[in-house]
Amino acid sequence: MAGSKFAYVKSFEIPDLLLPKTFIVARLDGHGFHRFSDEHGFVKPNDERALRLMDHAATVVMQEFSDIMLGFGESDEFSFLFRKSCTLYNRRSTKIISTLTSLFTSAYVMNWSRYFEDMPLKYPPSFDGRIVLYPSSTEVMDYFSWRQTDTHINNLYNTTFWALVQQGEKTPTQAHETLRGTVSSQKNEILFNNFEINYNEIDSRFRKGSVLVREVVPPSLSAEGKSSEADIAGSVSAKTLKPSKKPKPVYKITVCHCDIIGKSFWEEHPYLLES
Amino acid sequence: MAGSKFAYVKSFEIPDLLLPKTFIVARLDGHGFHRFSDEHGFVKPNDERALRLMDHAATVVMQEFSDIMLGFGESDEFSFLFRKSCTLYNRRSTKIISTLTSLFTSAYVMNWSRYFEDMPLKYPPSFDGRIVLYPSSTEVMDYFSWRQTDTHINNLYNTTFWALVQQGEKTPTQAHETLRGTVSSQKNEILFNNFEINYNEIDSRFRKGSVLVREVVPPSLSAEGKSSEADIAGSVSAKTLKPSKKPKPVYKITVCHCDIIGKSFWEEHPYLLES
Amino acid sequence: MAGSKFAYVKSFEIPDLLLPKTFIVARLDGHGFHRFSDEHGFVKPNDERALRLMDHAATVVMQEFSDIMLGFGESDEFSFLFRKSCTLYNRRSTKIISTLTSLFTSAYVMNWSRYFEDMPLKYPPSFDGRIVLYPSSTEVMDYFSWRQTDTHINNLYNTTFWALVQQGEKTPTQAHETLRGTVSSQKNEILFNNFEINYNEIDSRFRKGSVLVREVVPPSLSAEGKSSEADIAGSVSAKTLKPSKKPKPVYKITVCHCDIIGKSFWEEHPYLLES
Amino acid sequence: MAGSKFAYVKSFEIPDLLLPKTFIVARLDGHGFHRFSDEHGFVKPNDERALRLMDHAATVVMQEFSDIMLGFGESDEFSFLFRKSCTLYNRRSTKIISTLTSLFTSAYVMNWSRYFEDMPLKYPPSFDGRIVLYPSSTEVMDYFSWRQTDTHINNLYNTTFWALVQQGEKTPTQAHETLRGTVSSQKNEILFNNFEINYNEIDSRFRKGSVLVREVVPPSLSAEGKSSEADIAGSVSAKTLKPSKKPKPVYKITVCHCDIIGKSFWEEHPYLLES
Repeated sequence: MAGSKFAYVKSFEIPDLLLPKTFIVARLDGHGFHRFSDEHGFVKPNDERALRLMDHAATVVMQEFSDIMLGFGESDEFSFLFRKSCTLYNRRSTKIISTLTSLFTSAYVMNWSRYFEDMPLKYPPSFDGRIVLYPSSTEVMDYFSWRQTDTHINNLYNTTFWALVQQGEKTPTQAHETLRGTVSSQKNEILFNNFEINYNEIDSRFRKGSVLVREVVPPSLSAEGKSSEADIAGSVSAKTLKPSKKPKPVYKITVCHCDIIGKSFWEEHPYLLES
Repeated sequence: MAGSKFAYVKSFEIPDLLLPKTFIVARLDGHGFHRFSDEHGFVKPNDERALRLMDHAATVVMQEFSDIMLGFGESDEFSFLFRKSCTLYNRRSTKIISTLTSLFTSAYVMNWSRYFEDMPLKYPPSFDGRIVLYPSSTEVMDYFSWRQTDTHINNLYNTTFWALVQQGEKTPTQAHETLRGTVSSQKNEILFNNFEINYNEIDSRFRKGSVLVREVVPPSLSAEGKSSEADIAGSVSAKTLKPSKKPKPVYKITVCHCDIIGKSFWEEHPYLLES
Repeated sequence: MAGSKFAYVKSFEIPDLLLPKTFIVARLDGHGFHRFSDEHGFVKPNDERALRLMDHAATVVMQEFSDIMLGFGESDEFSFLFRKSCTLYNRRSTKIISTLTSLFTSAYVMNWSRYFEDMPLKYPPSFDGRIVLYPSSTEVMDYFSWRQTDTHINNLYNTTFWALVQQGEKTPTQAHETLRGTVSSQKNEILFNNFEINYNEIDSRFRKGSVLVREVVPPSLSAEGKSSEADIAGSVSAKTLKPSKKPKPVYKITVCHCDIIGKSFWEEHPYLLES
Repeated sequence: MAGSKFAYVKSFEIPDLLLPKTFIVARLDGHGFHRFSDEHGFVKPNDERALRLMDHAATVVMQEFSDIMLGFGESDEFSFLFRKSCTLYNRRSTKIISTLTSLFTSAYVMNWSRYFEDMPLKYPPSFDGRIVLYPSSTEVMDYFSWRQTDTHINNLYNTTFWALVQQGEKTPTQAHETLRGTVSSQKNEILFNNFEINYNEIDSRFRKGSVLVREVVPPSLSAEGKSSEADIAGSVSAKTLKPSKKPKPVYKITVCHCDIIGKSFWEEHPYLLES
């Protein structure tokens, strides 16, 4: 063949296989989203439209990658848990993470105008992705606890910071200064005493992030429909994604904003960590 | 800190650094584009809108990643050459390929409607990415020769195949049968004798793919403007991408459809392979 | 410093860290031992001197690397199991396997003349090493079952083959021919009917390989002494290895030739798989 | 087969291939040689017996691994340069470095008594190994310059230090104190003024380390013999190493103590860096 004298360059491709039978966690992060959120008028401290768009993109990803059992999102990042028996793309690391990041980005951009009706995209947003392997379920539970703890810490800080700036008429510098060294209880008090905000009454979406769970639909229900949350992305799921060739168990992706630190969530969803 | 008992999970992140001083080639491929092109009515054998959209997305990538010296696109794939001194993201492999794939995808989706005005996206397209390292310029030149040879082979086949189907009223199966075992000269003859198509007069975009070159704009010109090709993506470049903080040499990304097999292209652009 | 202009070359060293909290299995194999055993007059099918020397070298390795809980040897290979919490050399893969292979080789050569008194080394023997990670204890148990099954299969074949050659006056080619396609029971019958060898009465060292277990010595015993098996390598342990700086639990390495396929071995030694 | 239910554990072996067409440098370092040299009475600052034994082991390695073009040794470390076209073991990294480290160790221990006649080994010495890839000859030359610069710096320091201790009746602490912050010229002056030692007259073996070069023996000479240096290891070469099955160019390994910093060495041996 004409190309054969050059084909040796293919031998420089080095395999990058992920260890079998380990949990794969993929985490995506918005690239330069501090600026992106400014330029696109995100509401501070939390923009519900932006968070719902992230959930939408993550739902598309979980509908396409059937090995993903769980997603967790906060701010401009999303984590996905693959079942440990996953053999997608022969467990080629770069293939998995690049395709997943691409699909997430694609769904984010394609659905932007659903959530930001009057704000056209000024430039293309992007995400980076990474893969981390965990050998046992203990580390997986701790990973998601780590992310949700991060959500809590960041959201309490940001909520208090923006209250000081938006309602307390502090400059950003002053607000940071006020918060320096404070512990959680002190931030709660600032919110309550100064702004009559009871932190625990804030929307759980903001305090706990988004938890996307793959749930098996019992056969009797699977013909009927999806949950209301899944309906958000329903048209994507039902009409546009590649139809599976062989019959598979019917799943739905549900979105909630529940607690995943501690054991009870995992005890209620034991199959998430099964092989 | 509250999260510290879980932070150990971060220690499972394993570095994946690319060998310094080697050429990085990143190649993106459309994921499931056979179906995607069918569902979105791509013209066969080549859809100029789709190819221009690929070029557009690649231009955005090259404007953002200043270490990319050269791009080469054909069909639903694009290759990018980073200069070998590149230290982007400390040469973390997954960080580079996931961000690049994400930005390409983002620009592709965001600009879809410019090229496909009457064809809304039915579902989010995605790409996979891979990275290959080459130690010397010889292998880099051979890599791009390999891809352009592939363009030639595929395009000659597809052009003849679709002529047989569209004008010759063959079924796809018959057309494949007709072409089985033929060499290039025979396909050329089929085109010329049966369909009065002189293959060499076909648009070079189809025969040679798209070559995107980073070119330094001489200081006297850099205040004025961009080449007409760059104007395609001009608004992206000028208005929307992150402004650089320090003065840098001014580049423009030019698109052509020239020959990159053999030495002359590289001799005319020696800086593409310099450190 | 004078060397500083060259020190950049150190930046080409790429880290190769092993995933934390996974079991590390290191396996060493004799390099070219078919020829080595011929040149040094190894008794066929099994040379007890050679096997004892392997055990000796493995004992030295386990005395030096306190994270190794278990060793298994057969023929010219040895496998070692590190506890999954091991942080030796920061879990740098090449550092671990090169040092371990080196020490094993060193002990093998240094102690050669103890076991081969009248056979000086004709040339330096060498071993290759590899590392495999296993995420859970199930795979670890299956790994060692795999190796001991291999011991059984090889030893039954070799025992029958050499009986045919040494006592049955077959040529090697004829002996291989006789054995082609036979199952275990047929080989057992050949041994019993032709040579009055009851395979199950053959030394368990040959049939089951060598199992080296790290065992904690109860405090009341640790002042006294080692088991008789450990005495083989006693002088190495007591006099020559680096004295530990801080008091550690006292271990002894015991050698046996027991069954490790199935659960009972692991149930009797549960700490081997603990963190 | 009986073992097949366990054979899946083999799938956990992950390939670790080295990028093609890059120079492979392997470096071995003595493990705990500070103590080893004390326990075995090494002469300070340099023990010629120990250095000659290192050279001997390195010669054995270079005779066995025909892709190694160059070796450089100092103190208890040795570096080896493989030609960049090397395809040994399919460029499996761990296989290469473990086998090489093993053979070096084996030759070191086996030949110990030739160089240390009255000093039996008290315990088995070991080495660690690492592999570094370099894409171009510039970096390879700089690598070896880096190591020889290190030799110079260490040897000048050690020579002065031990002169102060052995002849100057300083304690080690006082000697380190005297040398703190001194530059090369000051150490030279201490040696000359206090101890009448002209540093440049010290044996070049100590000042420049050992350079082992693979040299092609012209056909007319190859039947005759080896250089005197090669004779040191002659018996190893001629009698004990695996005879090659096909005729190869005849090489000899020569040992010298020459300058490899700068261009002249490489200009005199251009084939060392060729493909």
